[in-house]
Amino acid sequence: MRASKYLFLTLKKTSNDSENIIYELMLRAGMIYKISSGIYSWLPTGLRVLHKIKNIIREEMNNIGAIELSLPIVQPIKLWEKSGRSEQYGFDLFRLFDRRKRSFILGPTHEEVISDLISNFITSYKQLPIILFQIQTKFRDETRPRFGVVRAREFLMKDAYSFHFDQESLKKTYNIMYNVYSRIFTRIGLKFYVVKADTGSMGGNCSHEFQVLSKNGEDNIVFSNKSNFAANLEFAESVKLSLKPNKPKEKMCLIDIKSTSDLINKFNFSIKKIIKTLIVHGSKKSSHSLIALLIRGDHDVNVLKLEKHPLISKPLKFATKKEIETILNIKPEFLGPINISVPIIADYSVALMSDFIIGSNIEGKYYIGVNWVRDIHLPSTYDLRNVSEGDPSPDGKGILQIKRGIEIAHIFQLGTKYSESMKIFVHDKKGINKFITMGCYGIGITRIIAAIIEQSYDEHGIIFPDIIAPFQVAILPVNMNLHFGIKKIVETLYIELKQSGIDVILDDRDERIGVMFADVELIGVPHIIIVGNNNLKINKVEYKFRPDKNKVLIDLNNIVNFLKEKILN
Amino acid sequence: MRASKYLFLTLKKTSNDSENIIYELMLRAGMIYKISSGIYSWLPTGLRVLHKIKNIIREEMNNIGAIELSLPIVQPIKLWEKSGRSEQYGFDLFRLFDRRKRSFILGPTHEEVISDLISNFITSYKQLPIILFQIQTKFRDETRPRFGVVRAREFLMKDAYSFHFDQESLKKTYNIMYNVYSRIFTRIGLKFYVVKADTGSMGGNCSHEFQVLSKNGEDNIVFSNKSNFAANLEFAESVKLSLKPNKPKEKMCLIDIKSTSDLINKFNFSIKKIIKTLIVHGSKKSSHSLIALLIRGDHDVNVLKLEKHPLISKPLKFATKKEIETILNIKPEFLGPINISVPIIADYSVALMSDFIIGSNIEGKYYIGVNWVRDIHLPSTYDLRNVSEGDPSPDGKGILQIKRGIEIAHIFQLGTKYSESMKIFVHDKKGINKFITMGCYGIGITRIIAAIIEQSYDEHGIIFPDIIAPFQVAILPVNMNLHFGIKKIVETLYIELKQSGIDVILDDRDERIGVMFADVELIGVPHIIIVGNNNLKINKVEYKFRPDKNKVLIDLNNIVNFLKEKILN
Repeated sequence: MRASKYLFLTLKKTSNDSENIIYELMLRAGMIYKISSGIYSWLPTGLRVLHKIKNIIREEMNNIGAIELSLPIVQPIKLWEKSGRSEQYGFDLFRLFDRRKRSFILGPTHEEVISDLISNFITSYKQLPIILFQIQTKFRDETRPRFGVVRAREFLMKDAYSFHFDQESLKKTYNIMYNVYSRIFTRIGLKFYVVKADTGSMGGNCSHEFQVLSKNGEDNIVFSNKSNFAANLEFAESVKLSLKPNKPKEKMCLIDIKSTSDLINKFNFSIKKIIKTLIVHGSKKSSHSLIALLIRGDHDVNVLKLEKHPLISKPLKFATKKEIETILNIKPEFLGPINISVPIIADYSVALMSDFIIGSNIEGKYYIGVNWVRDIHLPSTYDLRNVSEGDPSPDGKGILQIKRGIEIAHIFQLGTKYSESMKIFVHDKKGINKFITMGCYGIGITRIIAAIIEQSYDEHGIIFPDIIAPFQVAILPVNMNLHFGIKKIVETLYIELKQSGIDVILDDRDERIGVMFADVELIGVPHIIIVGNNNLKINKVEYKFRPDKNKVLIDLNNIVNFLKEKILN
Repeated sequence: MRASKYLFLTLKKTSNDSENIIYELMLRAGMIYKISSGIYSWLPTGLRVLHKIKNIIREEMNNIGAIELSLPIVQPIKLWEKSGRSEQYGFDLFRLFDRRKRSFILGPTHEEVISDLISNFITSYKQLPIILFQIQTKFRDETRPRFGVVRAREFLMKDAYSFHFDQESLKKTYNIMYNVYSRIFTRIGLKFYVVKADTGSMGGNCSHEFQVLSKNGEDNIVFSNKSNFAANLEFAESVKLSLKPNKPKEKMCLIDIKSTSDLINKFNFSIKKIIKTLIVHGSKKSSHSLIALLIRGDHDVNVLKLEKHPLISKPLKFATKKEIETILNIKPEFLGPINISVPIIADYSVALMSDFIIGSNIEGKYYIGVNWVRDIHLPSTYDLRNVSEGDPSPDGKGILQIKRGIEIAHIFQLGTKYSESMKIFVHDKKGINKFITMGCYGIGITRIIAAIIEQSYDEHGIIFPDIIAPFQVAILPVNMNLHFGIKKIVETLYIELKQSGIDVILDDRDERIGVMFADVELIGVPHIIIVGNNNLKINKVEYKFRPDKNKVLIDLNNIVNFLKEKILN
C-alpha cells in the first residue's frame, strides 16, 4: 500500500468522549468511529486488523474440519419463544416488527437458528458429528455499552456449533475446540487464561472461558499462585476444609449495641469475627418461604451458587426489610441464628469460626464470644460465597489471587438443552429417535482487538504483533522529493518486500518524517524503516522495532533479508 | 475438500414453497435455507460461491485504489431525518427502538452514514478524490419478497462511495467504476447490459444500471436492434420525431357511443387511432389544480417522466372520478381535449396522429376523424409515455425491443444532494468552503448468484463458471472400497489438483456413483472426473464438462495438465 492512496484517519487528540486507554488508542489510530453508543464503523486501519484475525480463525476452523455457513441476522422471535430464551434475554434483545407486524429480533447468538436448520437436514446418527461455524455480526442492546469495542451493541463474532449422537462425542469435539481456540489465541499473540465458567443463559453443564487479564475487564478471574487452577469468580468453588474450629476461649455474652457499624468502629471487633445473617426466599421445593444464610462478615454471597441450592429460590430473591420485620419480627441488623424460625444454611467458612459475633434477634443486642456446639448447634453447610484472595486453591495447591479479565471466547457443552426444548431428534442404528447433543463455541472477534491492544502499547500508540498488524513494515523516506536517489531506493525496497509476502506501506506522501512516524506508530506498525540521505551515504537505513526503545542502523543490502527473517519465520 | 467431511445438504425434491426455477435450483443445490419470507441462511455450498464472488469484487476494488471499511448495520434514524429519506423509504425501512427508546433503522444503504463519517474526517480539497467501499449485509422490508435471493429482505451488497471536489472529478471516477463493474461481471461470466436509469430515491443526475436479462426480472429493459442503446423502460426517452401528421382524409363528426370499449369492439376502430385524455393534479408551481394529458390509446404513461414536468404534481396523483365529475362536469370516459377548462399536455406521438378519435366532453358522444390545426389547436407536447417495442431508438439507429432484466448493480452521480442536506463542506485552495461532490455505486452480491444461475443450468442442476463454482473439479471414484487401486489413484489426483491451485472435491463417501454424480451436478461443479476400474485398465478416466452432453475418455497421465489448461488459463 502507498500512503498517498491510503486513508489513515488518525487523530492527534480525541474528544472527551474517550472513556479509557484502549478506546482512546483505537480512536487515535483511526481504527473505529462511533455512530451511536456501542455502535462503530470500522475504518480502513481497523478493518485490516479485523480481516487478518478473521482469516486466522477461518483457517484454523477449516483445519479441524469445521464447515462454514452464514446464518441470518434477523431472526423470527417464534424460534426464541420455542427455546424459552426470548424472556430470559429481556431488554438485551433488539426487537423489531416487519410491515406485516410479525415479530423479529436481531441475533445476539444463533443456537435457535442453527438448531432449526439442523432439524431439517440431520436425521441420522450417520451424519454426525459435525461442526458448523460462521463469522457474523451480532447485536445485544447492552444496558451500559463501554470501553469502545469491549462492550459494544453491534459486534463481530465467530460462532461454532457442534452436533453429536452422544455426550462422548461432544466431549471429544469440545476438547478439539478447546485446543484450536488455544492455538488461535497463541498465533494472534495473546496471553490468555482458560478458566472454568458458569453456563449462564446458554445452559448446559460444562463451560470454559478464555480470558485475557485487563484493567478494563468486567470479569473477576481467580488463580492459584502454585498451580494451573483458574476459574471465573462466579464459578470458583471454595474449599470445605476438614479443619475444626479453634477451641473456645471466650464466654458467650449479650452486649448492647446501637448499630451494627458500632461493632467494628466502636467495639473494634474484626470483621472476620462477625457472622452476617441474610434472609432469602425459599424455592418452590422448600416448604419454607424464607431461608437464613450465615456468611462471614468480610465475604460476599455468590448468586449463582445460591441459585443452585435446592431450598433457595431461583432467580435469587432477598427478603425485603418489611418482609423480615413482619414475618421474623426483628429489624434486619439484629438478625442472628439463635431462636430464628426459618431453616439456616451456613457457608463452609462459617463452620470454622470460633469466639464469633452474631445478631441476637433482640433489638439493640448482639452475642459475642459465641462458639459452635457449646452455644449453638452447627447448621448444614454449603458453598455460599465468592472465594477471596488468600483462600486455599480448590485443587489443594497454593492460595488464590483475583484479577480482572476480558472474556474473549466461551465454549459450552450444551448437551440436549436446545434439542429438548425445540424437539430435535436423530435416529440410532436401530431407527430409534433420541435428542441430538450439542455444543457451542464463540469468539468475540472485535473484542480480541481490544485485548491485544491492552497487552501491547506505549505512549506513541498501539504495537501490533506482526501477524495481525494493519501493515507489518512501514518505509518512511526523508525528504524524498529533495533527494532523487531516495525515491528509487524506497520503491525498490517496497516492491521487494511486497514480493516476499510482507504487508508493507510506503509513505510516499509529501509529509515531514515526524508526521509519517506519528501515523505508523499510532496504528501499530511493528517494523519501521527510515531511509534518509545521510545514512544512505554509508549504505545504511535506520530500523526501529516498535517494542524496542532505540533505532539501529542496518545495511541497505541486508534489510530485506533481515525483515524476512524477523517476520516470516 | 473431501465429501466425507463436507455437508452437501442437497435436496432431491423441494417443497411447494419454491416459487421459480432459480430459487428451486438453489434450494436443491443446498445453497440457501429459508428462515422467514425473504430471509435466508447461506449453507456451505452457497457460502463458497458467495465468498468467491466477494473476493473477486474486493480484488477489483483494491486494484482501482478504493479503500475498504465497514459501516454499521444499525443506524440512528436522526441521520435519515437529516437527509430527508426516512419518510421517502417509508415501510421499506426496518425500524427499531433501543432500551432507551432511541430510534434506529437497519441500513438498506449507507449514504447518510458515510456522509456523516466523511464530514468528520475530510475537510480539504487536498484529501480528495477518494473511493471507499464495504461488503455489508443490507435490509429492506420488501412488500413482496420473492424469487429467493432475487428480492430478499436481508441481502449482501458491495457498496462504494466516492467523494470529490468537483463534478469533473466525479465524472472521472464514475467512468472508472463503470469500467471496473464491467470487468467484475465479465470475470464472473455474466452476460450483462449497462442501461441508462432513473436516479430514484438515491437522487443525483446521472445513473446507470447493470442488468442481466431474466424471465424473473422485475425491470423492463429497452434495447435498439441496431446500436448499443439500452435503457431502463422507466428512463428510456421517446423520440420527438420531426415528421408531421398525415394530411386529413376524414371529416370530423360526433358519434353516439354507450361505452368506450364499444369504440374498439363494436365500431372496430384501431386503438392506435384513439387519444386517451387523463386528468392529473397540477404541481404547486402550476396555477391549475388539474391538468389534462393526451396519450395514444396503446401507450402507457411513464410516472417518472410526468413527475419531471413542472406543471404536474410530484408524487404523481391522478384525479379521482369524483373530482373529474365535480370540477369538469363530465364522466371520465367521455373526456376530451375540445372545450376543456384545464391546461393540456400532449405526448409527442399524439402530435403525429391524424383522423383520430377523442372524447367530446358530452356524455355518450365521441368525435371521430379529428385532425390537428384543422379541428383543434395542437397543445404543447412532452415525453409522457413509456417507449413501446417498435419505436425508433432515441439514438436514431434501429428500432426498440423490450426485455425483462434483473438489476445487479447501479451507479449514481449523486452530486451535492447529500452534502447540501447534511451540510458537508470541503475548502478549496483559498480556504473557501463548498459542498462536497459525491457518487455511489452498488452491487447486489447475493442477487448476482441468481443471475448467474439463470444464465446457466440444465435439467440436472446448476452449471457454474469455473471462477465462482463451489468446487471447480469433482473426482468421483466408482466402488473405491472394492478396488484398492482406485483409492490410491484418486488420492494422488486429488493432491496434485489441490497443489495446482484448483478447488477440488474428492467424493470419498461410501455412496453409489449415481448419488455422487447427482450431488456434484446439482451444486454446479463444472468439471467432473469419474475414476472406474474398467477405464483404468486402459489407463483412462472419464471426463465430463457440464455444459457438454457427453463424457470423454482422457489419459490418466494427462488429466491434471488437461484440467490445469482448462481452468487456470
